[in-house]
Amino acid sequence: MADTLQQFKEYLADISRLSQAAALLSWDLETGCPRAGVAKRAEAMGLLSQEIFSRSVSERMGGFLDTLAATELSDDDRALVRVVKRDYDKAKAIPPALVRDLSVTAAQAQPAWEQAKADAAFPAFAPHLEKLLALKCEMADIVGWQGHRYDALLDDYEPGLTVAELDPLLATLRADLVPLAEAIIARQGPVPALPAGGYPVAAQRALGEEVLRLLGYDFAAGRLDASAHPFSITISAGDHRVTTRFDERDFRPSFFSVLHEGGHALYEMGIPAKFHETPLGEGCSMAVHESQSRFWENIVGRSRAVLEYVRPVMARHLPALDGLDSDALYRLANGVQRSLIRTEADEVTYNLHVMLRYELEKGLLDGSLAVADLPAAWNAKLRDYLGLTPTSDRAGVLQDVHWAHGSFGYFPSYLLGNLYAAQLADDMTRDLDLDACLRRGDLRAPLAWLREKVHAHGRALLPAELLQRATGNAPDARYFLAYLRHKFLN
Amino acid sequence: MADTLQQFKEYLADISRLSQAAALLSWDLETGCPRAGVAKRAEAMGLLSQEIFSRSVSERMGGFLDTLAATELSDDDRALVRVVKRDYDKAKAIPPALVRDLSVTAAQAQPAWEQAKADAAFPAFAPHLEKLLALKCEMADIVGWQGHRYDALLDDYEPGLTVAELDPLLATLRADLVPLAEAIIARQGPVPALPAGGYPVAAQRALGEEVLRLLGYDFAAGRLDASAHPFSITISAGDHRVTTRFDERDFRPSFFSVLHEGGHALYEMGIPAKFHETPLGEGCSMAVHESQSRFWENIVGRSRAVLEYVRPVMARHLPALDGLDSDALYRLANGVQRSLIRTEADEVTYNLHVMLRYELEKGLLDGSLAVADLPAAWNAKLRDYLGLTPTSDRAGVLQDVHWAHGSFGYFPSYLLGNLYAAQLADDMTRDLDLDACLRRGDLRAPLAWLREKVHAHGRALLPAELLQRATGNAPDARYFLAYLRHKFLN
Repeated sequence: MADTLQQFKEYLADISRLSQAAALLSWDLETGCPRAGVAKRAEAMGLLSQEIFSRSVSERMGGFLDTLAATELSDDDRALVRVVKRDYDKAKAIPPALVRDLSVTAAQAQPAWEQAKADAAFPAFAPHLEKLLALKCEMADIVGWQGHRYDALLDDYEPGLTVAELDPLLATLRADLVPLAEAIIARQGPVPALPAGGYPVAAQRALGEEVLRLLGYDFAAGRLDASAHPFSITISAGDHRVTTRFDERDFRPSFFSVLHEGGHALYEMGIPAKFHETPLGEGCSMAVHESQSRFWENIVGRSRAVLEYVRPVMARHLPALDGLDSDALYRLANGVQRSLIRTEADEVTYNLHVMLRYELEKGLLDGSLAVADLPAAWNAKLRDYLGLTPTSDRAGVLQDVHWAHGSFGYFPSYLLGNLYAAQLADDMTRDLDLDACLRRGDLRAPLAWLREKVHAHGRALLPAELLQRATGNAPDARYFLAYLRHKFLN
Repeated sequence: MADTLQQFKEYLADISRLSQAAALLSWDLETGCPRAGVAKRAEAMGLLSQEIFSRSVSERMGGFLDTLAATELSDDDRALVRVVKRDYDKAKAIPPALVRDLSVTAAQAQPAWEQAKADAAFPAFAPHLEKLLALKCEMADIVGWQGHRYDALLDDYEPGLTVAELDPLLATLRADLVPLAEAIIARQGPVPALPAGGYPVAAQRALGEEVLRLLGYDFAAGRLDASAHPFSITISAGDHRVTTRFDERDFRPSFFSVLHEGGHALYEMGIPAKFHETPLGEGCSMAVHESQSRFWENIVGRSRAVLEYVRPVMARHLPALDGLDSDALYRLANGVQRSLIRTEADEVTYNLHVMLRYELEKGLLDGSLAVADLPAAWNAKLRDYLGLTPTSDRAGVLQDVHWAHGSFGYFPSYLLGNLYAAQLADDMTRDLDLDACLRRGDLRAPLAWLREKVHAHGRALLPAELLQRATGNAPDARYFLAYLRHKFLN
């Protein structure tokens, strides 16, 4: 039996070695792969995914799980078997033909979406979306669900969470957030002009590195590169890379991306060695991952306390910021405004953008909303939540790539990440004076707290369990609302 | 049948996709992998090698080869089947246990060699060498040989070449090269002092990039990075990377490494698309590969003609070189001297270093030389060829890593590369005025010639066949000797 466990872990380690290769192929593609290598790169990535998938659902894997189900195991090993079994059952349930269909349909949908977006012509994309939706519905029905078909998709990103739990959470948020955003926008002073003078890439990079070190990011186990879209990626235990995007006219995109992606990387750097090379050696869920990035980006990075501490560091690297006082820097980092584009939204209104998408997705999945009616529904909700009407579908329903990928159920993670971050921060302040830490640039103390309460569990707990253990409470939107009120209306 | 051929090619393409991942893991390890990621990296590379190997000797592969042996094929497809079958038979012959033994023994030998080298204590390394040698002898005997056991190992690097062919080639070389080197050293004037002032890395990199472009290296299908030991590597068709080593006190290591590695990369960039993703999409042999790197590094890069052309380019990037005249630059690039270390040797004496190693390897393989007697035999030969005695085994028999890797039979490739390069260049001058091209910086003309005569064949010909077709002659040392005489004694 101990032998089976050993073999099982070696089998998982081999999968993680293939994943290491897949991750590096992907990282390199985004950071430095020569143009002429891109086509063959996609093929190699496809082969590795297939190889990883076929091992994940192999007879051998099934055999391990059967044997280990009837074996005495330590808590950690039991959690491992549970998580692997969960993934296995789900992957096994879906017919390979359906997986292939979905992947082919998504591959066709993406260029169609790009073209439709360029032309601001939703109807050209609609047939692709309908097909994707039908396949995702089929998938959801095969995997199975009880309350709402959306549950089956949500589970891919936020294991165990259901619409029945998510809806009340969002009802609380929705009720308060719309008027709160209005109040914040009305109350805030003008955002100062960004100091001119330019923000050289090399200086922004050096600042990013210094900030990452301040966070506790270990450059012996990572590196910072540039890419068109910032991301973080774990290549292997011991290799957690981040990227950022440099804009020579504005320091903010790279500065806050570094904090955001650094937060993701710190999470994976903090996962204990006992979970390495197994599926427990990952983050708990998309939303818990996002809670870590948002904690460092927003709760820490956009706080008055840390900006005061970090201002001289920034000015040392970026002389353009030399004359800027702390209050102006704070306001540059914290402008709140109604806007059309999710990815450009501030930490307040961002959540309204996500809520809108979630509600539309749910309608598409349960059939209460037809694809043809999606643009109108989008615009109506945007008016309700943000009082805006998109100039065209390009800045409306076509703005995000997620649906063209077939990624329904993903959006709530962004919002939940913000809620979880605020809930964790609230609890953290019972154990340490976060504000005082930030004022003196001591970011190791909050990191140590997160290491113990969040990172230590890897993927061994479900997100709701993790939050319950860390904070003593189920996920609750009121912490986030209180955080916003305290920050913006005090 | 056409179907089998298609499936066979798709099967090979999958192997090349795995090789793409393996190559990228290796490139990243040498260029930028964080320290803490190294251990897991080795495991992922091991898994991929194993996966590639097991597909290369699979029953499926055997089945393809059997079916295709009895099938009408085009010339290219016949060559493909022949080359794959050759690799297959060889790999298949060796028992997996022996492969594992060798890999474990080599893994233990390498740190032992490092330590023995640091301590200048050959006896501590001797038992490892004996064990490796015994395993390589066993391997050679299993693979089979007729004239000399060394043939079986030589074949790994220079397919088809035997000691019976190599020995006369080297006899010609040996007879002339020892006195020729003496004459060159006696005749040459003093090498001027390297201009002081420093050679900043960024400027050397920019120079390297400009020189690569001049060579015809396509940055849309490659990139230049830094690494401890320069190398070139093909990640996939369309992605041929080179690295170099920067020394802020001397521009020469990076400058000539860029030419050398660029030469390797130009070879693989020039292989026709019809061979991509198959074993024909590689270089013909180690020595033919080396002929390409040496052509660009030495015959082109150290020529008076090209150095005159390139001097202002160098001075533009590296102001320290501004006052240097062409003759001084030429002499800085072409100092010939007796030295102890192969990797630091000039293009004349380098070949004596290699000849010595080849002769010792042959003795070790046929039993005429015992491992215990190796240091004495090394020192005796070094005295004969270069009139020097190593200060210790560190600068003598322990200097190279090859034997600790179990790589017997590799060294001759270096020397053969020089011979082939000179033979190709001799033939090239019948079709174009190489010297005139170099004087006006037209490096595209010699590249086009190599594309047609060498690169176009990929791995479809054996090295001797390729040389015969390209130059109308079998490999012959006299071209190289004539090149040296013309260059250094004119």
